[in-house]
Amino acid sequence: MRTAPPLARYKRELNEYLRAAVSHRHPPLLYQMIRYHLGWEDEHGRPDDAGGKALRASLCMLTCEVVGGDSRRALPAAAAVELVHNFSLIHDDIQDRDSERHHRPTVWSIWGEAQAINAGDAILALARRVLLGLADEGVPAPGVNEAARILDERTLEMVEGQTLDLAFEGTLDVTVADCMGMVQRKSGALFDCAFSLGALAAGAEPQAIAQLGQVGRTLGTAFQVRDDMLGIWGDPSITGKPRGADIRRRKKSLPIVYTLDQAEGPMRDQLRQAYGEAELSEQVVTLVLQCLDDTGARQYCLNVAQERKDAALSALDQIKLQPGPAAELRETAEFLLDRDY
Amino acid sequence: MRTAPPLARYKRELNEYLRAAVSHRHPPLLYQMIRYHLGWEDEHGRPDDAGGKALRASLCMLTCEVVGGDSRRALPAAAAVELVHNFSLIHDDIQDRDSERHHRPTVWSIWGEAQAINAGDAILALARRVLLGLADEGVPAPGVNEAARILDERTLEMVEGQTLDLAFEGTLDVTVADCMGMVQRKSGALFDCAFSLGALAAGAEPQAIAQLGQVGRTLGTAFQVRDDMLGIWGDPSITGKPRGADIRRRKKSLPIVYTLDQAEGPMRDQLRQAYGEAELSEQVVTLVLQCLDDTGARQYCLNVAQERKDAALSALDQIKLQPGPAAELRETAEFLLDRDY
Repeated sequence: MRTAPPLARYKRELNEYLRAAVSHRHPPLLYQMIRYHLGWEDEHGRPDDAGGKALRASLCMLTCEVVGGDSRRALPAAAAVELVHNFSLIHDDIQDRDSERHHRPTVWSIWGEAQAINAGDAILALARRVLLGLADEGVPAPGVNEAARILDERTLEMVEGQTLDLAFEGTLDVTVADCMGMVQRKSGALFDCAFSLGALAAGAEPQAIAQLGQVGRTLGTAFQVRDDMLGIWGDPSITGKPRGADIRRRKKSLPIVYTLDQAEGPMRDQLRQAYGEAELSEQVVTLVLQCLDDTGARQYCLNVAQERKDAALSALDQIKLQPGPAAELRETAEFLLDRDY
Repeated sequence: MRTAPPLARYKRELNEYLRAAVSHRHPPLLYQMIRYHLGWEDEHGRPDDAGGKALRASLCMLTCEVVGGDSRRALPAAAAVELVHNFSLIHDDIQDRDSERHHRPTVWSIWGEAQAINAGDAILALARRVLLGLADEGVPAPGVNEAARILDERTLEMVEGQTLDLAFEGTLDVTVADCMGMVQRKSGALFDCAFSLGALAAGAEPQAIAQLGQVGRTLGTAFQVRDDMLGIWGDPSITGKPRGADIRRRKKSLPIVYTLDQAEGPMRDQLRQAYGEAELSEQVVTLVLQCLDDTGARQYCLNVAQERKDAALSALDQIKLQPGPAAELRETAEFLLDRDY
């Protein structure tokens, strides 16, 4: 995936901050798992450079600049958001039995489930600890309390969304509205958090914090819809997931839910029966891909993602922003919705 | 187990506070798991009364009174500590593959591992959210931030201890010092947290907060040693665990570590060989129990627990306290170290 210029800018500073937060802690095993997952080390503890794009953290820092703050002030919040995201990835991989992420073995597949649960738990606790560093950057105590409240609420919402996502795997009765509600909690909430905390760190007014949080949530929802498209039509060599991965798992992502709803006649019966089988064969995957095609699910999802992005960008126009960083934020939003697959 | 009078006092208030914190949240499945685990409902969602003794929460509120505060002020902190404890239980049960806790099926054994991971994650996030309620009880913003720091640090320490505990299952090279270091993190840290936050909520000085935290840590360590004795010699009908449960699991609890260290000659070889086998048979469990007897492990552990309790109580004498609540705290400490098995 190509990297949008505004996002690359913060990565070094962010990684240094995160490294400092874990450097003095022990036992080694726990922090080895964490350093591995964050891409700083390979599984034998040798230096590596396999980290993700730190998208949420970068958006947090960029939002701070957008409302006129020095991005450095948002660094503890950006680090916290990034850690919450990574906590969710470690636990998701256990829940989904995914043995690879970004072409590397997942934490549980190397160290076992039990220790991987600890790695995720530790990252979540660490996220909260790191957030309190806002006080050192000059954020007044009531602001730090408010930041903690936002991080907790959004984390909780994310776990609520994850619970729905897993529950949906076992049922066919999921409407498009259910699906979008799940997506905006599972993915939208943490983008909301990133934007809100960036604005809060800059000292923005509560109204601007809430507005920018909403922009983040809308954008995060669009981002997830795009991600769900990659989970079905993505190139396995780029996404690192096998063909039709989300179909096999019976994920009720938007393309699937839309198609289950739109399919008619014999196709509808075939599709619902196929999803009721214990194991989805290669043949069934092909059938589902055909149904997705026939109902125009891809175009539908593209439209949904596009609408959300447009809504987010129009909402941005309603807020007084620094022109330079605001232009970068818009550029980043476009980039997020124009990823290859 | 009989209940110490000082502990029973806070339970209703605490439960009401916790219930209010989860009452408005959804999706139902997530909070059903949480209400079940907390003992308020059975697995079908019908009212139940199977909750634990809320020991850590009660100690938090009692400590608030001990330094002259109104226990009500500590309620959000007590609730948070109780939730962190319960988060760790839900995840521990998954990690240990325990299908029962207090004679009831564990969350994962009813709803599956994946959703049980979510239940634990949600309780941890909720704990942090609930703690911020200290502000509504009149704790100033910098105090709330300090409370958040303490909760995070102690939670992290607890997960670090849990990581060591699991890692120790796979090795024979665990010294008594390693074991005690693990115990004071896995169990001592959250008792430290309960005492520290109770004192903080009362508005105690930093020095008194630190001293009381240390008292809690020492007492928590003693409590865990007693618990480890129950894990070996406890009456299965009372503890709800099978005979020799911790032996079968190769837990490196203090009695075992002491015996592995103290055993000599052929007994030592036999013991070490036995612990290297893939499955510990009934015969091996009997052998280990015999070795524990021969090395006097039970008396050794009793002495360690007694020493820690005495140390905690002497440390209490160094701090200016309210006589009534302090007497109750002493009574509770005695009770904790005098549990049946």
